[in-house]
Amino acid sequence: MGAVTSPTGDRRYLEDFSVGQRFAPPGEYTMQLDEMKRYARDFDPQIIHTDEAGARDELYGQIIASGWMTLGVTTRLMVLARIFGSTPLVGVSINNLRFLEPVNAGDVLSVEAEVLETRPSKSKPERGYLVMRVVTRRRNDGKPVLTQDWTLLMPRRS
Amino acid sequence: MGAVTSPTGDRRYLEDFSVGQRFAPPGEYTMQLDEMKRYARDFDPQIIHTDEAGARDELYGQIIASGWMTLGVTTRLMVLARIFGSTPLVGVSINNLRFLEPVNAGDVLSVEAEVLETRPSKSKPERGYLVMRVVTRRRNDGKPVLTQDWTLLMPRRS
Repeated sequence: MGAVTSPTGDRRYLEDFSVGQRFAPPGEYTMQLDEMKRYARDFDPQIIHTDEAGARDELYGQIIASGWMTLGVTTRLMVLARIFGSTPLVGVSINNLRFLEPVNAGDVLSVEAEVLETRPSKSKPERGYLVMRVVTRRRNDGKPVLTQDWTLLMPRRS
Repeated sequence: MGAVTSPTGDRRYLEDFSVGQRFAPPGEYTMQLDEMKRYARDFDPQIIHTDEAGARDELYGQIIASGWMTLGVTTRLMVLARIFGSTPLVGVSINNLRFLEPVNAGDVLSVEAEVLETRPSKSKPERGYLVMRVVTRRRNDGKPVLTQDWTLLMPRRS
């Protein structure tokens, strides 16, 4: 996988986002069987993610990616999209996460996002919360494979 | 990190679980700075997760683990706990996920789980859904660092 990105671009603040704003960054990620197995060995050591022969007898008939790896790839694509400039992407909560389709080797994933809500913190005036619907799409067939709503910590302009 | 676990134990079915049932497996995982950086390079390439000097100027003053790595470690601990026997752990959805505390190098994590709901599928009689509250706890200070509700696909006894 790639190197660490240097932060580029300005800081972004809660006020820079508005409800309904959409992002469809061009970045994509091709799922590779060896990386799928490596992730699974580290974080999701199950036959359905690591062993071709064993996976044949299970629900999907072949190795599928750990859903938590698909989550990681989604995070990578969102970070590299740099829609937050040099402001760190800090997750507070996730709601309505759905694993919609099994992800296989060769699948090319991309992300889309839409702002659902911007909410100043009640207790800390320098902070706020940005709620985004994040959709992970498989470019091979256009299907969404993962959807989720992220609540991110976002600084406010002073 | 460790090797892939062989599936051991019987298949577990939806009927083997009941609301209120709790699990507190003994497994633990110690967060290591080099693994935190490696995860971040792959999936969450941000200064706050990769660069000591740069992280000093950010919100937490030091490198913290990617929340998505903490999710991966939680999955690992849940898989290795084998409370599902040899039945694969297949996630359908996640709700109410909260990143409660930053996770640092040296933190020792463990998991606890409680069954919230067991629900037969309406369309597929051989399947059902198991909803579990999963809590990731830091043994160093006893604080929960991550909570989430998993909906898992579970076979039913025929």
